[in-house]
Amino acid sequence: MVKIKFNPYNREIEVLQGENLLEAVRKAGIFMDTPCNGSGTCGKCKVKVINGDIISTGSKNITEEEKKNGYILACQSTVNSDAVVEIPETDSSSMHGMKIEDFSGSREKNIFQRSRDQILKSGMKFNNNIKKEYLELDPPTLNDNISDFERLRRHIKKQLNYDDVFCGLTILKKMPQLLREADFKITITHIPDEKGKTVIINMEKGDRTDQLYGVAVDIGTTSVAACLVDLHNGELIAKASSGNAQMKYGADVINRIMYSTRGNGLEKLNHAIIQETINPLLNRIYADSKIESDEVVSFVAAGNTTMSHLFLGVYANFIRQEPYIPAFVKIPLIKASELDIKVNPETPVYLVPSVASYVGGDISAGVLSSGMWHSDKNILFIDLGTNGEIVFGNSEYLMACACSAGPAFEGGEISCGMRASSGAVEKVKIDSSYNPTFSVIGQEKPLGICGSGIIDLICEMMFAGIIDRKGKIIKDLNTDRVRFDEHGIGQYVLAFKEQYDLDRDVVITEVDVDNFIRAKAAIYSGITTLLNNLSMDFTAIDKIYIAGGIGNSLDIANSVKIGMLPDIDQNKIQYIGNSSLMGCYLTLMSEDAKHKLEEIANSITYVELSVESEYMNEFVSACFLPHTDIDKFPTVKKCLDSSV
Amino acid sequence: MVKIKFNPYNREIEVLQGENLLEAVRKAGIFMDTPCNGSGTCGKCKVKVINGDIISTGSKNITEEEKKNGYILACQSTVNSDAVVEIPETDSSSMHGMKIEDFSGSREKNIFQRSRDQILKSGMKFNNNIKKEYLELDPPTLNDNISDFERLRRHIKKQLNYDDVFCGLTILKKMPQLLREADFKITITHIPDEKGKTVIINMEKGDRTDQLYGVAVDIGTTSVAACLVDLHNGELIAKASSGNAQMKYGADVINRIMYSTRGNGLEKLNHAIIQETINPLLNRIYADSKIESDEVVSFVAAGNTTMSHLFLGVYANFIRQEPYIPAFVKIPLIKASELDIKVNPETPVYLVPSVASYVGGDISAGVLSSGMWHSDKNILFIDLGTNGEIVFGNSEYLMACACSAGPAFEGGEISCGMRASSGAVEKVKIDSSYNPTFSVIGQEKPLGICGSGIIDLICEMMFAGIIDRKGKIIKDLNTDRVRFDEHGIGQYVLAFKEQYDLDRDVVITEVDVDNFIRAKAAIYSGITTLLNNLSMDFTAIDKIYIAGGIGNSLDIANSVKIGMLPDIDQNKIQYIGNSSLMGCYLTLMSEDAKHKLEEIANSITYVELSVESEYMNEFVSACFLPHTDIDKFPTVKKCLDSSV
Repeated sequence: MVKIKFNPYNREIEVLQGENLLEAVRKAGIFMDTPCNGSGTCGKCKVKVINGDIISTGSKNITEEEKKNGYILACQSTVNSDAVVEIPETDSSSMHGMKIEDFSGSREKNIFQRSRDQILKSGMKFNNNIKKEYLELDPPTLNDNISDFERLRRHIKKQLNYDDVFCGLTILKKMPQLLREADFKITITHIPDEKGKTVIINMEKGDRTDQLYGVAVDIGTTSVAACLVDLHNGELIAKASSGNAQMKYGADVINRIMYSTRGNGLEKLNHAIIQETINPLLNRIYADSKIESDEVVSFVAAGNTTMSHLFLGVYANFIRQEPYIPAFVKIPLIKASELDIKVNPETPVYLVPSVASYVGGDISAGVLSSGMWHSDKNILFIDLGTNGEIVFGNSEYLMACACSAGPAFEGGEISCGMRASSGAVEKVKIDSSYNPTFSVIGQEKPLGICGSGIIDLICEMMFAGIIDRKGKIIKDLNTDRVRFDEHGIGQYVLAFKEQYDLDRDVVITEVDVDNFIRAKAAIYSGITTLLNNLSMDFTAIDKIYIAGGIGNSLDIANSVKIGMLPDIDQNKIQYIGNSSLMGCYLTLMSEDAKHKLEEIANSITYVELSVESEYMNEFVSACFLPHTDIDKFPTVKKCLDSSV
Repeated sequence: MVKIKFNPYNREIEVLQGENLLEAVRKAGIFMDTPCNGSGTCGKCKVKVINGDIISTGSKNITEEEKKNGYILACQSTVNSDAVVEIPETDSSSMHGMKIEDFSGSREKNIFQRSRDQILKSGMKFNNNIKKEYLELDPPTLNDNISDFERLRRHIKKQLNYDDVFCGLTILKKMPQLLREADFKITITHIPDEKGKTVIINMEKGDRTDQLYGVAVDIGTTSVAACLVDLHNGELIAKASSGNAQMKYGADVINRIMYSTRGNGLEKLNHAIIQETINPLLNRIYADSKIESDEVVSFVAAGNTTMSHLFLGVYANFIRQEPYIPAFVKIPLIKASELDIKVNPETPVYLVPSVASYVGGDISAGVLSSGMWHSDKNILFIDLGTNGEIVFGNSEYLMACACSAGPAFEGGEISCGMRASSGAVEKVKIDSSYNPTFSVIGQEKPLGICGSGIIDLICEMMFAGIIDRKGKIIKDLNTDRVRFDEHGIGQYVLAFKEQYDLDRDVVITEVDVDNFIRAKAAIYSGITTLLNNLSMDFTAIDKIYIAGGIGNSLDIANSVKIGMLPDIDQNKIQYIGNSSLMGCYLTLMSEDAKHKLEEIANSITYVELSVESEYMNEFVSACFLPHTDIDKFPTVKKCLDSSV
């Protein structure tokens, strides 16, 4: 065994000689964002050896200078002796870091209000099916000595008129003491069905009828967001988000599925999403709002089909293999205790139904909250998360497809990419002398760049003449912000480390630009192919809703300029935030919405892009800024012409 | 810390100086039967100090000679240094020891046959509600790419005509791989309801429709018995029994309940019954019968009300406190996985409903299997287990009471008492020179005496003139088998240790006889009081069924002679074995029987003896051999007269 100490965490662990260094980092409980999951290609697990014998194969992700300074890729290294290793303070902590959101701000509020209005306008009601009742039971005597549960049942039958009453084991376990401590004055939380039966899911002392809480969770591949809701009035009590702790096992669903098939990989992924992501988020929310987990009696979650499988711990590998079959799209209700989610153990877990292997519950929920299902206008819904999903339609029909956009929109596979959280550059301008100005989420110090920032950056670089329309960096520009490494790969420095006291410069490389171009091309060609499939073109679009983790500051004009979105009237394009979380929220609040959601998931027609012959051509044509055929982007053409 | 080594187990543990020695024995994982649970009264935790400093308070249960030889009571001792302690090889291992029963023998078979006949004669059917179906699904293709679960649902809907299909999480988890490994040819096990729904509880590869198994368990306070049943034909595949591992926490329900209220006592008791008793029994059965736990898809258990609470881990203390209220008498179905029982995790656990705090599910099940519920004759049902419960009635009415008989019938609170398992003396004769002959269950060497043996022994001692009618040992008899300790307490030696190479003599003391007389008096006075309550006497009894753990060799005549059973025509009295287990077996096999069982539990009228003023008088009068009023036992009187 050898001892490895990790700075600045001051954490020491013992591992076998010969252990992979990235595995050692994970065993030490230190989070590193490793999109390629140890294959040595993403370059994100860069660490600095302070002392000790660590054997490392070289990597094109390590420059000569870095090599001299002791930098190696942890995933490409094995430990040969006791050692001290420094882990750079990059975005990784903030990548996973938790953020309690203040939604007193108008933007978040407006988005919620808009979703609520969609439901109410369509004639649905906020009718969740969870009820609370305050009961005063007759205490037992020698003459009235029926069991506690029979006493409760008798009272409920008489007072509330239910034929039969059920309860789970956890209720039975706490009932005898609780009844007596409460002097037989209790509040039950129960879920009645239409047939005169009801199921008790919680029991509290005294009158607690005014407290009724639920939790909605959006399980994104990169980011997870949760909100605590007062089920009486629909008020949001707290909202929090963090990185998905599964990121350490791969950046996208394909890498995660691959990891899940190895050893106890599936268990680890399930543990990562529930124990390392959702429960910590909930604990933060509870601490903040002074609410106990036992009081939370409703839970709705949505994720893409793979996330849904991993959330339940269900084998997901056949999603990835032709003919791409999920184990389920819709599951029967299960109890929170079965998944060990930190809410009341009897809470029914509702997982939003998926449509197909690559159009998940997050899209069903997004369509619900967008309101497109009761619109007579043609609406294009685009979810820009770790993948890109597109739905087109109206109250008559809904068509969907999934684009292999990869994780670039949430900062994945971008050297300084990060999700839209504290420390992320979200808006960028570049002046004529190639110098940038930018704004950072939550603080001064730029730790990395999120999706909206990358769009701005690429767009500005193009218009400033730093990159050409292929995304290649122009040589011999008169600026120290542009440089080329020994392999000839160019990069643009957005922020010098000296200026902000960082461990590294915040840069964008030609490789990053190329990755991002392919991501945006996947979206654009997806839209084109889906419309062609319906024999339509962009003129048919009455409205575009953009949803997802790309960031609140998404610049619509720039998104068009780089050719991600079609060049239509930009007043028709609107960012609607985390529509999946909104859909979960609506489902929490309304049984009507839940039924509608199931209808939506059932009715969406899935178009498999990989079998559409034209898709590949469309994609290749779109791998340009904004497009190989500039005439498809008349307003951008005009701008480019004028900027030359 | 000090080290304690236990012989002959060769087990060593470290404990804090000052630790109680009985606690140290438990921590070392060694089972000792301690009915009084450490209060120093039962004298069962006798151990021998080989070396080391162990501080012990004296005890009347340790003779001067034993003291000289280093014997102490573990519960009354604390450890002061490293030590070596010998634990006598008494009944304790066999008390808990597991026994796989061979029921090819006629007795066991007859008892089963009788119970089955009761059900069938009453017009019920063997119609258990668990079905198996072999299905050949169409494998998925790119054109038929619905999810695995939808595919299954579609097939079941079409082929079996169920409107809706549900399944639990464990099924969902194994489905994707299982379907493909099985080439989509599978067998499902499911439970349909009447409304066109069905719930899948197991899934296997290929055609397994011929394999359908269930388990029935009788959870006695002292003994636990389990049997594995072929649900297709009702055949018993294996049966096993063992001591209830909860015994280390107290011999009777009151001591167990008291233990359950301390610290994590409830958890420990729940662990003892499920993890240390039921699951090991099932593992033995599975190993013996080459059946996997996953194939067992039905589970029925019965126990007294306290055992039922502890089995579920439900707080039981209010059973013990006036007004004696159980938390429940009937529970909704729960899943085996919720209790961690070693059967298929989706298996519904059916716990037989209780009647009241002191008439449990074991009695409901016993009444079912006795058939008294459809008899027009008056039947007296007596369960002689750790407690004694009595039910009287017929198809018109059923009255029940519980007698505080204590654990004596199963060997509890008797110095050499043990349950009716291997090594127990089950039958005894004593000749005119005070020498005994006896038979031992399963082997030659007598380790202790079980209930039926104690009845014989006391009866024979009375007729041989060793004890008087108060149970006191006659002095100055011409035999070395009778002796008195320094406190003047007499004892009779049934087996000298030298003769059988034992660690101690097998004896019965005056204290034991006294304990047993109180137990048998509780039964007799219970019968009298119950009949008086109905303004009836013994002439109203058409039949007596004796059930319970007292032992297969129960001698009816001797039971009457000592005054446990009324002096009626002995042809009317029949031993029917473990009627609780039989009732569970019938419930496994028949939904009709299950409905009848619930009817029985609902319809039994419970008579609380402690509030019947005459009960105490009846009890005191019965604390004689056979009774203070010998005229109540005319045939015994005749025998006694002739033996004088």
